[in-house]
Amino acid sequence: MDETDAWDASTLSVRAALRDAIGAGDGTDPRAAVATVVSVDGSAYRRPGAKRVLADERAVGAITAGCLEEPVADLAERALADGAVRETFDLTGEDDTWSFGLGCNGVIDVLVEPADGSFRPALDRVRTGGGRTDASRRLPDSQSDRTHAALLTVVGGDHPVSGGDGTVPVGARALVGEDGSVASADPRPPLPDDLLAAVRDRAAAFAAAGRSDTVTVETDRGTAAVFVDGLEPVPELLVFGHGGDVRPVARFARDAGFRVTVATSRGARADAERFPAAHDVVAARPPDVADAVSRPADTYAVLMSHNFVDDRLALDALLDCGVPYVGVMGPRKRFDQMREALADDGVELSDDELDRISTPVGLDLGGGEPAQIALSVVAEALAASNGRTGGRLTDTEGPIHSRPDRDADSD
Amino acid sequence: MDETDAWDASTLSVRAALRDAIGAGDGTDPRAAVATVVSVDGSAYRRPGAKRVLADERAVGAITAGCLEEPVADLAERALADGAVRETFDLTGEDDTWSFGLGCNGVIDVLVEPADGSFRPALDRVRTGGGRTDASRRLPDSQSDRTHAALLTVVGGDHPVSGGDGTVPVGARALVGEDGSVASADPRPPLPDDLLAAVRDRAAAFAAAGRSDTVTVETDRGTAAVFVDGLEPVPELLVFGHGGDVRPVARFARDAGFRVTVATSRGARADAERFPAAHDVVAARPPDVADAVSRPADTYAVLMSHNFVDDRLALDALLDCGVPYVGVMGPRKRFDQMREALADDGVELSDDELDRISTPVGLDLGGGEPAQIALSVVAEALAASNGRTGGRLTDTEGPIHSRPDRDADSD
Repeated sequence: MDETDAWDASTLSVRAALRDAIGAGDGTDPRAAVATVVSVDGSAYRRPGAKRVLADERAVGAITAGCLEEPVADLAERALADGAVRETFDLTGEDDTWSFGLGCNGVIDVLVEPADGSFRPALDRVRTGGGRTDASRRLPDSQSDRTHAALLTVVGGDHPVSGGDGTVPVGARALVGEDGSVASADPRPPLPDDLLAAVRDRAAAFAAAGRSDTVTVETDRGTAAVFVDGLEPVPELLVFGHGGDVRPVARFARDAGFRVTVATSRGARADAERFPAAHDVVAARPPDVADAVSRPADTYAVLMSHNFVDDRLALDALLDCGVPYVGVMGPRKRFDQMREALADDGVELSDDELDRISTPVGLDLGGGEPAQIALSVVAEALAASNGRTGGRLTDTEGPIHSRPDRDADSD
Repeated sequence: MDETDAWDASTLSVRAALRDAIGAGDGTDPRAAVATVVSVDGSAYRRPGAKRVLADERAVGAITAGCLEEPVADLAERALADGAVRETFDLTGEDDTWSFGLGCNGVIDVLVEPADGSFRPALDRVRTGGGRTDASRRLPDSQSDRTHAALLTVVGGDHPVSGGDGTVPVGARALVGEDGSVASADPRPPLPDDLLAAVRDRAAAFAAAGRSDTVTVETDRGTAAVFVDGLEPVPELLVFGHGGDVRPVARFARDAGFRVTVATSRGARADAERFPAAHDVVAARPPDVADAVSRPADTYAVLMSHNFVDDRLALDALLDCGVPYVGVMGPRKRFDQMREALADDGVELSDDELDRISTPVGLDLGGGEPAQIALSVVAEALAASNGRTGGRLTDTEGPIHSRPDRDADSD
């Protein structure tokens, strides 16, 4: 692993690398490959859907804890020459019998494919933003809410092609929207109609849930293993503020996989150089801050203008636009005052609105340095985006030493 | 704020900048200043002890949420010309009556001083490591446990000097160890003996607790305001592993203020270039990993070699050396197996040892990307270092909307 291996890249970065690899052409002469975990037996470092893009000059993304880079690089060359290939890596015997279920152990199925144009419609669907000058990302809600999709890829089985002459090859592909709509995925061979019909409802459900896994699909004519890759836009972190404390929040959030917009407040310039980690930097009057929100359901907002009136106006606007989470920096007492001020303006916060407000913002990590506060804020936003509350995993099933060893095998 | 303003630098970086500013000379001709929050009225972004080093070419550290940079820069020039100065910033009226207790509001006392040699003994005391070639950091435990100190600085009052002729000036200084030992702090004027005697016990307690605040000290001869700056080494994160997943852990941990050592496992080279965020990269056989621990009580360890036997041997060694926290990456079932294997070797983990083990490591943030896993790990280690357990701050005092508005003022 070296500087050309962005191993710990976020999903957003892996998608950007894939998009770059496909390039501006018609995608029929790919020069990069993409490896995807399509199924896992037991516990693994990465789950199905994890991707690694392998281009000549650079690899981006991780599919294991670091043990399959070399064989996957070999498979990439094969895929570029001969087309998509699925390989099973059974690593259970590599170490000793006690080593299982993590990283370099376990059974992992990997699909390695040319980074061809068949990915492009799916990438376009889940794309959000794409640069500070891209005004098109501000879609009306009705459009922006329809951004999920499932990319279906045949990874095994013996299902015949539509005419019945031969078996559907590994790599055959279709795109299914969360509403069940179907699109082709040129230049790949399509899924036969009966196979597609048999998996379509499940694919739509996977798309809606952002779930990825290999499913077995049976029709009257045969059986296929289909990898259903539910793709959804990455969550967005919207930071309202302009101070130095915004910088580490933007940095951690970008690293942690958020798309990051900084909305500068109180006349501060929307100076992209001040917040190099942000994907977008926009100037926003506090009541208009929701204009920076393109996908309310996937947007996690943090108010840190350190100005009471500005934060209050932005809070009102963001709650109205429907974001699921608004973190408000500052002590609880400050928010109590804010709530009173809103009441004086005739705005009574509903229980639903109060449930979406997090104040004091952040997880209880106890650190007082700017970067520690930022880590606490981003950790909470990440937990919120995944429906978690950020306690210790070791406590999730009770204290270790009081738990019966019901899972332990005998030696 | 620009590239020359490392506003969100960690305490470790601020101390390094202060050390650099003092330079290799005798520290009597300082060319940089250091600003320190010495007291705060109400809730503030930074607590007493927060520092900002102001050198010609670069400023490092934050003392507010970003509103006092300019006046503090002016004070730095004054301090370099005339010596230490304390200034009170009362910002409660800057905005409106609702804006209080955060960032650009509240009352903050700031001490601005020349970065002279008087800081050096205290910095030496709390220094840990200092580069990959510094072998001296591996002190015997008996020495390495005595690393706390309190730097005492007069910031006000009318206490007479020792001879009685004149008042003790702002900036008069002494160094007190956690054991009550006293050292001078040349080239600063010392604290009068009676004043020092009156504050010494409190200073030792502040040193032990790493606490910083301004205290009022009375003697028969007068009263002084003394800023007692309890300094302790920053916590150390020790990562045992060698894979790509170590990199984001090291990066987040360094950013979050840890001193970071990567101990590579299983024959991997101790290649500093592979882990650029680490302060130290060392090769360690698993049973010898504790050799990389210089201050067990302040070391938080994470085992992520992804090798069952290596992790088990390292776990045993680290528990033995007394670290308060060992995070073990992997599912709970893997740890149960590890515990069985230890039992087979005749090692029964005590309740105390089990309490120090965190597995699955990390806070429950729900993210599965490498950087998200790393964020979860570092957030837990930070929480552990502060005696916290994560969880949302907004939940710490019950749901917002069920809490009586007892703190809210009427308008």
